Amino acid sequence: MHLRLASLGFGNVGRALAIMLAEKADDLQRRYDLTFSFTGAFTRSAGGWIAPGGVSPAALAASKWPKGGSAVMPVVGNWPAGELPPPVRGDPREHLAMHTSVFAGGAVEFVRTCPADVVLELTALNPQTGQPAIDHIRAALIAGKHVVTANKGPIAYAYRALRALAQEHGVALRFESTVMDGTPIFGMAQAALPATVITGFRGLLNSTSNYVLSRMAQGESLEAAIAGAQRLGIAEANPSNDLEGWDGAVKATVLANVLMDADLRPADVLRDGLGAEAMRLAREALGPGQTLKQVVEASRDKDGVSARVRLVALGADDLLAHLSGMETALLLHTDTMRDLTIVEGEGGPGQTAFGVVADLVNIVRGMGN
Amino acid sequence: MHLRLASLGFGNVGRALAIMLAEKADDLQRRYDLTFSFTGAFTRSAGGWIAPGGVSPAALAASKWPKGGSAVMPVVGNWPAGELPPPVRGDPREHLAMHTSVFAGGAVEFVRTCPADVVLELTALNPQTGQPAIDHIRAALIAGKHVVTANKGPIAYAYRALRALAQEHGVALRFESTVMDGTPIFGMAQAALPATVITGFRGLLNSTSNYVLSRMAQGESLEAAIAGAQRLGIAEANPSNDLEGWDGAVKATVLANVLMDADLRPADVLRDGLGAEAMRLAREALGPGQTLKQVVEASRDKDGVSARVRLVALGADDLLAHLSGMETALLLHTDTMRDLTIVEGEGGPGQTAFGVVADLVNIVRGMGN
Repeated sequence: MHLRLASLGFGNVGRALAIMLAEKADDLQRRYDLTFSFTGAFTRSAGGWIAPGGVSPAALAASKWPKGGSAVMPVVGNWPAGELPPPVRGDPREHLAMHTSVFAGGAVEFVRTCPADVVLELTALNPQTGQPAIDHIRAALIAGKHVVTANKGPIAYAYRALRALAQEHGVALRFESTVMDGTPIFGMAQAALPATVITGFRGLLNSTSNYVLSRMAQGESLEAAIAGAQRLGIAEANPSNDLEGWDGAVKATVLANVLMDADLRPADVLRDGLGAEAMRLAREALGPGQTLKQVVEASRDKDGVSARVRLVALGADDLLAHLSGMETALLLHTDTMRDLTIVEGEGGPGQTAFGVVADLVNIVRGMGN
Repeated sequence: MHLRLASLGFGNVGRALAIMLAEKADDLQRRYDLTFSFTGAFTRSAGGWIAPGGVSPAALAASKWPKGGSAVMPVVGNWPAGELPPPVRGDPREHLAMHTSVFAGGAVEFVRTCPADVVLELTALNPQTGQPAIDHIRAALIAGKHVVTANKGPIAYAYRALRALAQEHGVALRFESTVMDGTPIFGMAQAALPATVITGFRGLLNSTSNYVLSRMAQGESLEAAIAGAQRLGIAEANPSNDLEGWDGAVKATVLANVLMDADLRPADVLRDGLGAEAMRLAREALGPGQTLKQVVEASRDKDGVSARVRLVALGADDLLAHLSGMETALLLHTDTMRDLTIVEGEGGPGQTAFGVVADLVNIVRGMGN
């Protein structure tokens, strides 16, 4: 089977994805009988292009698009619908340029127009509303296109509606990379934990908080630790989304809604005593042997599922206390296996891209939703 | 779909399985359209019975068979092949007794004779040869029956041959419960780590060693710690299989052969400096902040895959150093996700039974091998 991909957003994750699909092309074909091409991509700053004949992942990665300016920008042209391009020859950048046309409309129109089997939602998170990614995904599903999103906003704000829409249109909606990069949380729950009720969870899910608190535990100041996280590319220029628990709240919502059948929104997640000043105070109040971590938790009681993000002084007997600054972890409480914990050693764009690859393979294997 | 199960061995795991299938019956039917019955069971000490019409998991669990002596033993009778029993009424133990016939032959003949869709291999491990469980599984596969084994011997000693036999006969061979109970290691690797090369692993996989070393770290003597493990039912009367690394070597073989496409046997696994006296000496040699653990490892170099079990003094920055005495863990080195670690909080017959349930569901979902 051949899957034509249209990508919304094309930054570090998009590039890592194109590289991974190129590097794993033989393996994907041999083991899953699966080949890929990109028939279009769209970014807010660079605009979009559509190549109905498809650009190979290797060609797209080699083109460096959207970096590199006009030298690698797609050439304008009215591409005849249904006509196939000649085979790739020579410089793959040339291939990309030869068979593409500039797309002049907006993102939703791009999703509707681009001939594709799967729309990839790789735009940046809007932690307050999940938009405009929700609209992108809605348009894709209505157009009968499968969706893989690494953007967690739509799953946090509109999971039930989007899931229903996907079912209505007979297409898949997958989102492995929304929590802990491509760590196989949702794939594992779906495929390997049948007949299991997840009754709660605890996690260290925010890399910036993990890193900053670890550095502070080693004696660094809060400011120096934040600067270090920014140098490593873990933290945004404004790290308040991370340190004040918004990132954690969005992830808690995704996990609670998907794994525990809750219907929360990020604002329903209690965010308690967070932020830079709270971190400083909590560190000063730590007892001997304790470790401070930003912990995401959810549990179910008679009133339903509730979730929270808070700074917790973990004792030395708590495995989560011993995660390094680069590790993230999720502990699931289940009725069949009791406690299961999964730890990601170190995340990044490559790990996020892998989650997208896993979702693509599972769409083809019929593990759609 | 209805699956008829024939169980070889029926101890703690078999009972836990019958109870779980009974408790989860509604969920399994609703979510997977799947119902179960036991058409036979066989143990070396109690002999076997065959009930072509099927005994419900609830009835089998309620019967307490093979405990309870002749009062709950299946009643003798030549059961007419193909004839269905009347519906269950009254005491489920009566149902079990009414519709069964004693099976007088041996285990392999039982596997061939019992009308079943899936044969469950739940007999005790023979760490030296994997037999007679290999013969049981071979007979089942040749007879066109799916196999789920919680006994790791056959996978350690004959994985490639049995896998080929299963493929030849168009049936499934699954074994989730062979390592870390039902922790979804193989299910996760198969379903959620596509196109991934596992390049090595490290694990704390032996519960007895974990428990004994943890108690010793708290100041208990080796003898007292072993006695404690025996009281908790973790350790056998003779714990040398655990402490001398045979259990770890068998698990390393299963993991290396299945996850890394190796072709090892347990005797190929280097077992270095193990046993009670070595544990005592290694404890005395520990540096400050170090923790002693029995570690199972595998890696690949130009000569292929090699595996070992040894006592390792782990530093405080190693997550595996901080596992409690009841936890087990496996760290996978991968080419797509870098390091992933999965931790089981506490194992037991219920967790092992869950792995069997997961395998049964995945047989029906077509995730056979």
